[in-house]
Amino acid sequence: MSKPDASPSASTAAPTLDAPLLPRIKSPADLKALSVDQLPQLAEEMRHAICDTVSKSGGHLAPNLGVVELSIALHYVFDFSHDRLLFDVGHQCYPHKMMTGRADLLPKLRQRDGISGFPEPRESPYDLFSVGHAGTAISTAVGMARGDQALGHGDRRVVSIIGDASIVNGVAMEGLNNAGTLHRQFLVVLNDNGMSIAKPQGAMAQYFDRMRVNSAYGHFKKRAHEVLARTPFGHALEDMYHRAGEMMKAMITSGHMFEQFGLLCVGPIDGHDLPSLIDMLNEIKDFDRPVLLHCKTIKGKGFDFTAGDPSKFHSPSPFTVEGCRVEMKKSGRSFTTAYADAMVDIMKRDDKVFAITAAMPDGTGINKILPLFPERSLDTGICESHAMDMAAGLAKSGMKPFFAVYSTFAQRAFDQVFQEVSLQGLAVRICLDRAGFVGDDGAVHHGFMDISMFNPLPGVVMLAASDEGNLRAGLEFMRTYDAGCSVIRYPRDAVAETQVVANVPAYELGKAALIKPAKGAKADIAILAYGTEVYEAHKALADLEKQGYDVALYDARFAKPVDVELVRQLVEAGIPILTVEDHFITGGFGACVLEACNQNRIPTDLIHRLAMPEKWVYQASRKFQLGEVGLDATGIARKVRQVLDQRTAANADVAAASR
Amino acid sequence: MSKPDASPSASTAAPTLDAPLLPRIKSPADLKALSVDQLPQLAEEMRHAICDTVSKSGGHLAPNLGVVELSIALHYVFDFSHDRLLFDVGHQCYPHKMMTGRADLLPKLRQRDGISGFPEPRESPYDLFSVGHAGTAISTAVGMARGDQALGHGDRRVVSIIGDASIVNGVAMEGLNNAGTLHRQFLVVLNDNGMSIAKPQGAMAQYFDRMRVNSAYGHFKKRAHEVLARTPFGHALEDMYHRAGEMMKAMITSGHMFEQFGLLCVGPIDGHDLPSLIDMLNEIKDFDRPVLLHCKTIKGKGFDFTAGDPSKFHSPSPFTVEGCRVEMKKSGRSFTTAYADAMVDIMKRDDKVFAITAAMPDGTGINKILPLFPERSLDTGICESHAMDMAAGLAKSGMKPFFAVYSTFAQRAFDQVFQEVSLQGLAVRICLDRAGFVGDDGAVHHGFMDISMFNPLPGVVMLAASDEGNLRAGLEFMRTYDAGCSVIRYPRDAVAETQVVANVPAYELGKAALIKPAKGAKADIAILAYGTEVYEAHKALADLEKQGYDVALYDARFAKPVDVELVRQLVEAGIPILTVEDHFITGGFGACVLEACNQNRIPTDLIHRLAMPEKWVYQASRKFQLGEVGLDATGIARKVRQVLDQRTAANADVAAASR
Repeated sequence: MSKPDASPSASTAAPTLDAPLLPRIKSPADLKALSVDQLPQLAEEMRHAICDTVSKSGGHLAPNLGVVELSIALHYVFDFSHDRLLFDVGHQCYPHKMMTGRADLLPKLRQRDGISGFPEPRESPYDLFSVGHAGTAISTAVGMARGDQALGHGDRRVVSIIGDASIVNGVAMEGLNNAGTLHRQFLVVLNDNGMSIAKPQGAMAQYFDRMRVNSAYGHFKKRAHEVLARTPFGHALEDMYHRAGEMMKAMITSGHMFEQFGLLCVGPIDGHDLPSLIDMLNEIKDFDRPVLLHCKTIKGKGFDFTAGDPSKFHSPSPFTVEGCRVEMKKSGRSFTTAYADAMVDIMKRDDKVFAITAAMPDGTGINKILPLFPERSLDTGICESHAMDMAAGLAKSGMKPFFAVYSTFAQRAFDQVFQEVSLQGLAVRICLDRAGFVGDDGAVHHGFMDISMFNPLPGVVMLAASDEGNLRAGLEFMRTYDAGCSVIRYPRDAVAETQVVANVPAYELGKAALIKPAKGAKADIAILAYGTEVYEAHKALADLEKQGYDVALYDARFAKPVDVELVRQLVEAGIPILTVEDHFITGGFGACVLEACNQNRIPTDLIHRLAMPEKWVYQASRKFQLGEVGLDATGIARKVRQVLDQRTAANADVAAASR
Repeated sequence: MSKPDASPSASTAAPTLDAPLLPRIKSPADLKALSVDQLPQLAEEMRHAICDTVSKSGGHLAPNLGVVELSIALHYVFDFSHDRLLFDVGHQCYPHKMMTGRADLLPKLRQRDGISGFPEPRESPYDLFSVGHAGTAISTAVGMARGDQALGHGDRRVVSIIGDASIVNGVAMEGLNNAGTLHRQFLVVLNDNGMSIAKPQGAMAQYFDRMRVNSAYGHFKKRAHEVLARTPFGHALEDMYHRAGEMMKAMITSGHMFEQFGLLCVGPIDGHDLPSLIDMLNEIKDFDRPVLLHCKTIKGKGFDFTAGDPSKFHSPSPFTVEGCRVEMKKSGRSFTTAYADAMVDIMKRDDKVFAITAAMPDGTGINKILPLFPERSLDTGICESHAMDMAAGLAKSGMKPFFAVYSTFAQRAFDQVFQEVSLQGLAVRICLDRAGFVGDDGAVHHGFMDISMFNPLPGVVMLAASDEGNLRAGLEFMRTYDAGCSVIRYPRDAVAETQVVANVPAYELGKAALIKPAKGAKADIAILAYGTEVYEAHKALADLEKQGYDVALYDARFAKPVDVELVRQLVEAGIPILTVEDHFITGGFGACVLEACNQNRIPTDLIHRLAMPEKWVYQASRKFQLGEVGLDATGIARKVRQVLDQRTAANADVAAASR
């Protein structure tokens, strides 16, 4: 190790020379059998294992490196086979998984036959909630605390762990406010690494910064006892103070933001100092009031040491560290990059366009825009509800807001789209990245409910982009569409290298685009594909044609309004229709077609739907997931044959019966 | 006036003896023409007018009485034909409406040809957003501030007004956190009346209480300058301090909760002292940083004085003051009361049942439960997202949470139902009061998107209650349904006095109930009604039978899963089906039937849908609204005739063609 001072356990001498400890940890009981002295070595081994794994699998590197000691200390002090441990967001659960019997599965992180990158109750009873969206842990923890209490299990301690970027999310704040009313043990561990997913946003982030660096702060802290008596919270804290242990007393914070929520605030303490962490947790664990333990951790702690040991961080495929994540470099140009470039062009041409992201500048491509248009772009932090309302305010002022957000996170702003956008008729542009299957992030991140969510909102228009040309054309349509809210969806995938149509026509409201006409006078079947499924369908055509099926292919482009005239023509011509989409079947594009037909008294017995089935699909590659539910070229071809063969058989029956 | 000391302007001598001022106020310009001395009299007149109106129309009494002086002062100091005024929740907008040209329409408050009880841009350019859901104003104001700035209108001042119960809502907190990053004028007026909709909940409410009463607080405030230099915010505040006016300086608050969000906090000041309010607003209005002005107001200020003057508060129909609202007593027993009584019975029988409301104890009936089962019921305050997550935590612990929430407010917890409930497969019971048209609260409160919202979530079951017996049976079904989330809907209406079916059968998953069979061997049409539309359809039967139509009527009971076998039998028998529901047509019960048919290859040309059209329906009585869109008995009968007559005509055409 060439840089021993960068290693947390460097001072306890080269740990890797000792017998490895990690292989012995099959459960938290094995951890508890170790002495506190041995824990830094274990931390070191876990850190190396995480680096090794993430360099190969992709995933959240920095968040996990930051909580190695915290996770060890929590499992060392608490008994989570009985007590409750709830992770916020959950992408920092790798050390926890390693200590709860899943270290062997780490090499298969984020793979179908391996383990999820998020907590997953299907894997282990130590994982209580399958999560991936931010801000929820404190609220679910409050529920478990009340539930355990009501069921006579008040002895079950409840611990939640949440980062500094998540804790300012609305749900988390609501949770804190309600946690403050509990009269029992309730520990919130604030993992303050000053990093979060991207640069933390909002005034609170500055507050945390000041708290970390302000030397005057220590001064306040030391006089806590004296100060407490003078604060609005005085008596309650004074009372708590007397029940606190010595170490805890010394670290009680007066004037901490969250004190106003009724929590006793302790820290900040060093989240990498294992003996101190363990001592503090031991003092705090039975405290009978809500406590927030503010831990300072270092983003990607220990990541540097791998620089001196390349063999520990090699990777068979190239990767990049994006924010807190390691992204495996995928072949091809992503929709996200294409979006960013298209937006830069648009913003050069139209100075009313304003670009927004909610804490996902890398994931949505807004990172390209922020430095170019600092006055017309903003990262709001993890607060999708606020971001949507801010977009509504911008639109009301006369700007053209484009809010780039993951489809799954847009769900967090549904009520805002209803009231502040749709009801007002405001032209907010919502750009849904990660629509459809997202691959290795799994069930918590798929974007499969956006069509059903936005469809009922009066005046909202819904588009999909099948490739880069269509993404550009769709965004240009939205730029000039001022009649109301518009929503475009595109997946976490590469754009097609060669577009099926070279010269993409402009988007025309509610009009599909013909991609490939039938060869004969009348197609055997028409495929209406929504979004990138156009390309899967296109791939299926060759085989189908070889097998003698004459298939017409359309890029549906709009789910709302549906191209009713096209559907009517096809149905009147007796041509079966197959709708194909990377969205839940329930309420999806196919359902929009069915409703439009019913509304227009067009029979639907010729209409068939292919979409994501109503079930959870877990981590794997996006390609695998599409194949799994029959949404790849093979699946589409199979479905086409099935539809046509059934119809032929049915017709034969009818013919036989009428004979 | 027998109790002069209860009147804000009592000290300025009997105001009603002077020439009335209110009739002269046709716009804010007329207000500005008055002297400050005259304003208390105006306030008095407005207060009387509001009491008079609300006693007749129903509506939000206390919130409006509390903000009379604040509203006058804001319009007196700012120019909201240019500046921006954003109301949170909006039910406190009556004084604002009176001063912006709508005083004459006040007697028609909450009526179709009158004015909405909420801000409504269709009525006046002084109303920027049509709102009714809490917590949004700061966020939309941030958007408008940024938009105005980007468009070169930085001189437009931005003011939002929000209550103490709303400001702890997640969206509001997110808004504050982001407002703190603005470098321009931005005023948030905190209307702290310690009342809100119900008793404020959560730790912050206690904090506000302390702040209002704690004498030590004044001590802190007075030494603000000195204290500022020592706080984490020190330098920024110090700088701001020098730019503040004298009155503002004297009232700058150190240690205020929201200071940590980066806002300069001023107050609390008396929100009824007009001269002081105006002086303060004049000092504050051009301050170039975000400021929170904390105003103490008195709930229902001035309401008492009406006791001495009954003629000022008579009402042609009986009414009750519920929380902050005046509810006109409606004939009959409400679904809300029926729900409360059913829940009390259930909770006596099953000690795992836990009842939750998010700030609507009166509106959901939970007020009956709270005193009876204090350990198994909770009002979380206005935080639907938190409440849903808490319910998930309770379910995970092994409890049976029943969350009673208005359908429209459930939209605020959609992502929580997705991730923390549906994905986990937890048996959270969601009870949707105010599903369908809500009457005089209008577009912001209708519950018309719950079916489309919950339908795509895997494992969720959806029920409706047509009457009290069915509500009880449905809740009992949910109590024992542990396989996943269940959702029941019922309207803001009275339960039927006489049930169409006296002995209500138990709910059986996915099974409809026959209400009235066809008279002959084969019905001309079968109506599948969802929820209380069963009763409207039932009323329609008599007329239809007289006209010779033979109609079968079913209570659909489940929208998910749909009773596919019933639908199949009807379709195979060639019987047309009409689905009827008090929900948007898009994604509603009828759409569920269409999707189920398509999935099961059942033709849909016999299926017709009657539901709320995709348009906004504004304030009026619920009866009027149902009639307006054809969802009353008359409308249903009309639709049945239309369907059957069209079919007859079509069949005649076919017959003629084949002749």
